[in-house]
Amino acid sequence: MNIAILTSGGDSSGMNPAIKKFVECCYEKNYTPYFIYDGLEGMIDGKIKKASYKDVAGIIYRGGTIIRSSRSKRWYEKKYRKIAYENLKNNKIDALIILGGDGSFRALDVFYDEFKIPFMGIPATIDNDIPLNEYTIGVDTALNVIREAVDDIRDTASSFSRAFVIETMGRECGYLALTSAVANGAEMCLIPEVKYNLDNLKKRYLDEIKNGRSYFLAIVAEGLNISYKIKEWFEKEIGFESRVTILGHIQRGGSPTVIERLRTAEFVKTALDNIEKNPDKIVTYYDDKFVLRDLKDIVNSKYELDENMLALAKKLMGI
Amino acid sequence: MNIAILTSGGDSSGMNPAIKKFVECCYEKNYTPYFIYDGLEGMIDGKIKKASYKDVAGIIYRGGTIIRSSRSKRWYEKKYRKIAYENLKNNKIDALIILGGDGSFRALDVFYDEFKIPFMGIPATIDNDIPLNEYTIGVDTALNVIREAVDDIRDTASSFSRAFVIETMGRECGYLALTSAVANGAEMCLIPEVKYNLDNLKKRYLDEIKNGRSYFLAIVAEGLNISYKIKEWFEKEIGFESRVTILGHIQRGGSPTVIERLRTAEFVKTALDNIEKNPDKIVTYYDDKFVLRDLKDIVNSKYELDENMLALAKKLMGI
Amino acid sequence: MNIAILTSGGDSSGMNPAIKKFVECCYEKNYTPYFIYDGLEGMIDGKIKKASYKDVAGIIYRGGTIIRSSRSKRWYEKKYRKIAYENLKNNKIDALIILGGDGSFRALDVFYDEFKIPFMGIPATIDNDIPLNEYTIGVDTALNVIREAVDDIRDTASSFSRAFVIETMGRECGYLALTSAVANGAEMCLIPEVKYNLDNLKKRYLDEIKNGRSYFLAIVAEGLNISYKIKEWFEKEIGFESRVTILGHIQRGGSPTVIERLRTAEFVKTALDNIEKNPDKIVTYYDDKFVLRDLKDIVNSKYELDENMLALAKKLMGI
Amino acid sequence: MNIAILTSGGDSSGMNPAIKKFVECCYEKNYTPYFIYDGLEGMIDGKIKKASYKDVAGIIYRGGTIIRSSRSKRWYEKKYRKIAYENLKNNKIDALIILGGDGSFRALDVFYDEFKIPFMGIPATIDNDIPLNEYTIGVDTALNVIREAVDDIRDTASSFSRAFVIETMGRECGYLALTSAVANGAEMCLIPEVKYNLDNLKKRYLDEIKNGRSYFLAIVAEGLNISYKIKEWFEKEIGFESRVTILGHIQRGGSPTVIERLRTAEFVKTALDNIEKNPDKIVTYYDDKFVLRDLKDIVNSKYELDENMLALAKKLMGI
Repeated sequence: MNIAILTSGGDSSGMNPAIKKFVECCYEKNYTPYFIYDGLEGMIDGKIKKASYKDVAGIIYRGGTIIRSSRSKRWYEKKYRKIAYENLKNNKIDALIILGGDGSFRALDVFYDEFKIPFMGIPATIDNDIPLNEYTIGVDTALNVIREAVDDIRDTASSFSRAFVIETMGRECGYLALTSAVANGAEMCLIPEVKYNLDNLKKRYLDEIKNGRSYFLAIVAEGLNISYKIKEWFEKEIGFESRVTILGHIQRGGSPTVIERLRTAEFVKTALDNIEKNPDKIVTYYDDKFVLRDLKDIVNSKYELDENMLALAKKLMGI
Repeated sequence: MNIAILTSGGDSSGMNPAIKKFVECCYEKNYTPYFIYDGLEGMIDGKIKKASYKDVAGIIYRGGTIIRSSRSKRWYEKKYRKIAYENLKNNKIDALIILGGDGSFRALDVFYDEFKIPFMGIPATIDNDIPLNEYTIGVDTALNVIREAVDDIRDTASSFSRAFVIETMGRECGYLALTSAVANGAEMCLIPEVKYNLDNLKKRYLDEIKNGRSYFLAIVAEGLNISYKIKEWFEKEIGFESRVTILGHIQRGGSPTVIERLRTAEFVKTALDNIEKNPDKIVTYYDDKFVLRDLKDIVNSKYELDENMLALAKKLMGI
Repeated sequence: MNIAILTSGGDSSGMNPAIKKFVECCYEKNYTPYFIYDGLEGMIDGKIKKASYKDVAGIIYRGGTIIRSSRSKRWYEKKYRKIAYENLKNNKIDALIILGGDGSFRALDVFYDEFKIPFMGIPATIDNDIPLNEYTIGVDTALNVIREAVDDIRDTASSFSRAFVIETMGRECGYLALTSAVANGAEMCLIPEVKYNLDNLKKRYLDEIKNGRSYFLAIVAEGLNISYKIKEWFEKEIGFESRVTILGHIQRGGSPTVIERLRTAEFVKTALDNIEKNPDKIVTYYDDKFVLRDLKDIVNSKYELDENMLALAKKLMGI
Repeated sequence: MNIAILTSGGDSSGMNPAIKKFVECCYEKNYTPYFIYDGLEGMIDGKIKKASYKDVAGIIYRGGTIIRSSRSKRWYEKKYRKIAYENLKNNKIDALIILGGDGSFRALDVFYDEFKIPFMGIPATIDNDIPLNEYTIGVDTALNVIREAVDDIRDTASSFSRAFVIETMGRECGYLALTSAVANGAEMCLIPEVKYNLDNLKKRYLDEIKNGRSYFLAIVAEGLNISYKIKEWFEKEIGFESRVTILGHIQRGGSPTVIERLRTAEFVKTALDNIEKNPDKIVTYYDDKFVLRDLKDIVNSKYELDENMLALAKKLMGI
C-alpha cells in the first residue's frame, strides 16, 4: 500500500517529527511512504515523490515542514481536484495523511466524496482551535517560544517603569495569548473571544501603581489587531511608556518540545493504524487519549476555550 | 490561618513557580504565607519567615528553589521533630505544604500522627516515581533540557562515526531516560527497571552499520552506573569510538516550561483549596485531573513505568 | 573611599554582570561600593544604598539592571543637580561609575564641572553608537538574541513562499540590523545611515525568484519606522505574502554572553583602576584594548559604522 | 579554478557556516567549489563532489560539519597520500582549503612538499590551542554552551549545600575551562597547564563556608582526568556533597554564535582571497586582524594561555 503525507495551511513546529514518524511507521507496517510537496497546490502540480529514511534524517528538531505547505485557491475548483486525483493515480497513491487545520480536512473530505481516496487528518496548527480536540501539533512548542520571550522581557521590564505589549499569533483564536498570559503571570490578556474592559483594568492598574507596581506585561492576540492601540492606551491612560513586541513566525519555528514529539508520534501512529480499516477520519486528542472522529462531528461542534483557563484570566481582561 | 511551605529532598525546576503561586494563592484566600527555609532541617532549626509578594517577584523562570532544600537525618529522631513542632507553634504556623518525593511525605505523615499539624504533599522530583501519580513537578523541564542536549550532540554525531552515551538523572527510576530515548529517537536506552540485552543490540547495530548507520546515541539512566562501561562496550564490541556526557544537575536547573508552570499552579491551588477541610493528603495528577490521595494508598502501591512507552523502547533495550 | 554605581538610559544585557563585578572589584581594592537606584532620577531622589556581595549573588546571568535605570528631565535643571550633589555628600560618596550612552556621560560631565565629583563612564547601550569606541555593553547578547530569532524564522520560512520582515532595535543607529543581516545571511538590510534602493532590490529579487528562491528574510532597523511598509512592498511589488516580527525588548533581556561578561569585567576593572588618579574619563574599547578617553574627544568625533561590514551589506541594500 | 574544502580532526561549531561561506565566496570569485567528505580519509577514498548553493541551504545554524570529519592513520603512509593525489587530479582539483587543528595543517604541508597542491589552513578546533593565533572556529560557541550549563547549575546550586564539578573539553589545553571559570564566576578552575594547589583551596573554602558560602562551582579540564577525584575531594576534605557534570560533545554542537559566524566568514574570505597568489599558508586571527602565516612559524612557536586570564584565575587554582 502506498501512502502519501502532505502538510497544509500555516506550518507549525512538530510537522517535521510527524513526517519522520510517518516514514518510520510506514516501514514498520510495510506501507510505502510518499511525500506530496507544497500541500494541496503540490498535489495539483504533481509534486509527489517516494520517501526514504534518508529524507528524514536530522529533521526531528527542526521547526516548520520540510515538505512545505501552501494555501490553495485552485482546490475549490473541481477541475483542479480532478488533476490532483489523476496525479495520485499516476503515482499509485492509495491513501493520504494530511496535517493541517479544519479547512484542510474539509478539502480532503470533499475529495473523498468525489474520488474515494481514503485519508486521515491530523490536527496541526498553532491556533489549537479544532473542536472536540484538545491538542494540535505545534502548540506546546509555540507556548514555550512565547514563554522565553516573556521571560527575557521581564528582566528588562523590572529595570525601567514601562508597559510591554507582546502580540502572539492567532487570528480568530486567542488560545496562545490566553494560555501564555496565565502561565507567565502577565497583567493583561486580550483575546478575540472575550469582551475585555479597559476601564476596569485602568482602575486596577492605577491602584497597583500606587502600591508600587513598576511595570506591566500585556499579552494580546494578533487577531484583535490592537497591539499599537494598547501601547498608546498605556501611555495616555496609565502614564507609562510602552513598547511593542510582535513575535510573529518565531512561534512556528522553535525546536519541537518533548511533548510535541511524543504526541506527534501518537497522532501519526494512530492514523496509520487505522487508515486501512477505518479511513476518512480525523485523529483527535481528547481527555488524554487519541480518538478517531468523523469530520462532520468536528465541523458541527464549536471550538471553545478551556473554562478553567478563562476563569483564571478574567482578572487580566478587566471582567 | 498561617500556612508555611517547604521544599524537601532533591530540588527540581518548577519549585520556584510553585512557591510564587503559593504566596499569591494564600493572599487570595486570606491565608498568611510563610516560608520554611532549608526543608526539614530548617524546620528543626527554626528558619521560618513570613513571606510576601516581594519575595517571589521574578522567580517564576528560575530553576531550583529559593527557599532551598535539604535531606534531614535528624528528623528520624523524635526529639528533633519535637523541636520542629515547637518552632511551628512559636511562629503560629497552622498548616504545612511540602514539595518533595514520597520520603518527604512520609516525614510529615509521621509528624501529623504525633503533633496533628495538618499538611498537604505535592509531588516534586525529576524522577517522576510516585505511585498513583502521573506527573511530578520538574519532569517536563528536565525532559526538555535533555532534549536540547541530545539535539546538540546529534549535530556533531553526524559529523563523525561515533557512539555517544548520554547519562540522565534517576537513581532507581529510569523515567527520564526512557521518555527521552523515545522522544528523541535514540538507538539505545538502558534503565534500572528492565533487563536489557547487549548481545541482541550488538547484532542489530552491526547490521545497521553495514546498511550505512554512522553514529549511535545511547541514553543511560544514572542509577545503573554503567555509562563508562557502555562507552567501552561500543569501542570494543562495535568498533566505534565513544564519548560520554553526564548531564547531571543541568536537569534540575532549566527555566520551568509552560506545562511545568500550569501544572504547578494547579497542584498548589488544589492543595490550598483543601487544606482546611481535607488535610493530610497528597495531591496527585492522574488521568489529566488533580486528585487527593491518602499517603498510605500511595505507599502501598508500586510505581510502574508507562506500558506504552516501554513497548516503544523495547527495541532500544535489545529485548 | 566610597564609590557609587548607577545605570542610565536604556538598559542592556551585561549591566548586571557589570554591577556584580563592580562590587567584587571594590572589595578587592578596599573601596566601599554603593548603589544609586533608578539612575539620575534616583540620585536626585536620594535612592543611595551601601552594596554587598549578597545584593549581587545570582545576577550574573540576568538581563536588564537590578539597580534600574531612568531618563531624567529634571537633571537639566541646576536645582535638581544641586539636590543630587547634596544627596551624594550626605552619603559620603566620593566618586561615581555610570553605565549608559553618551547622553549619560554628558550629564555627569556637567555635574563634574559644577561639583567636582569624580566619575568614570562605561559605554552600555545596545545601539553600539559611541564614537572612538568599538563595543558597548549589551551588544553581543542582543546580536545573539536576534540570531536565534532569525534562525527560528528561517525554519518556517523554508516551509512556505514568504517574505519575513524582522525589525531590530536602534533609533538612529543601524548597527544591530547591519551586523545581524551580515552574520545571519539575510536578503535585505535597511538602516537609517544608508540610502537604500528598493528598485534595485526588486530587480534582483524577481530574478532570484525565477531561479528558484522561495523566501526572503529582511532585517530592518527600528529607527526607519518602515517595517509594515516593507511588508506591503513585498506583497505588492514582489508578489510574496509577508509577515512582520518586531523583536522589541527581547533584545535587552537575554542572558549575557561570554564575551559580554568578559568585556564587562574589563570595563569595570579599568574604571576602578583609574578613578582615583585619572577620573572624569570614559573607558572605551578600541583596537582590542581598553582605553581612557576625555568626553570631549568622544563628543567631537562622529560615530561611524564599520566600512567592512557596510561593504558586505551593500548588496542587501540595493546599492 | 576548482577548489575543494575538507574538515579534519575533531569537529567544532562554526564549520558549517564556514562551508556555506566557502561555496558563496567561490561563486563570487568564479572558482568552482568542491567538497571532500570525511576529511583526509575521504580524500584517500575519493569522496569528492562538486558543491552547489543547494548543498549549503539552511546549514548556517547547525553545529558539526555536514561534510563530516575524520582522523586518518593511513595518511602517514606515502602510498595513501599518492592515492589521495590521484583522486584530486582525477577530479581536477587545483587547491585545497582545510579546517582543523595543527595536525591537519601538517598533513597538508607534507602533501604540498610532495605534490605541490596549494592549500590554505583555517584553525578550527574548540581547544583554541594554535600558536600565533587568538581564535579558532568553534570557541565562542563552545564557551556559550558551557555558560548556559553553568547558569542552569547555579540555580540549583543555590538550593542545596553542594559542590558541582563541571568538566569541559580540552585534552592538553585548558582554554575552555580557564575562560569559562573566569567568565562565569566559578570558585575552582583546574587545567593541565598550571600546577594547582588543593591545600590552599581547602583553607580558603573552609573560611568561606564559615562566612556563609553555601555552594561551589568547579570547572575542570577534561585533559586532567580528575573530575571524579575532585568530587571525592569535596566530599572528604570540604564536607560538601558533590555532583559531576561531563559536558562532552554538547560543546561541539551548539548553534554557531554571531561572532562565530562573522569570524568564520572572514577566515574563509581571507583564505580564498590569497590562495592563488600566496598559497600554503595558515590564516590566523591575531590582534583583531586576519594574518597569513607559514606553518613552520606556527609549529616553531608555543601556544600560551592569555596572561591576563591566568592572573584572574590564580585564586581559583589555589596559587
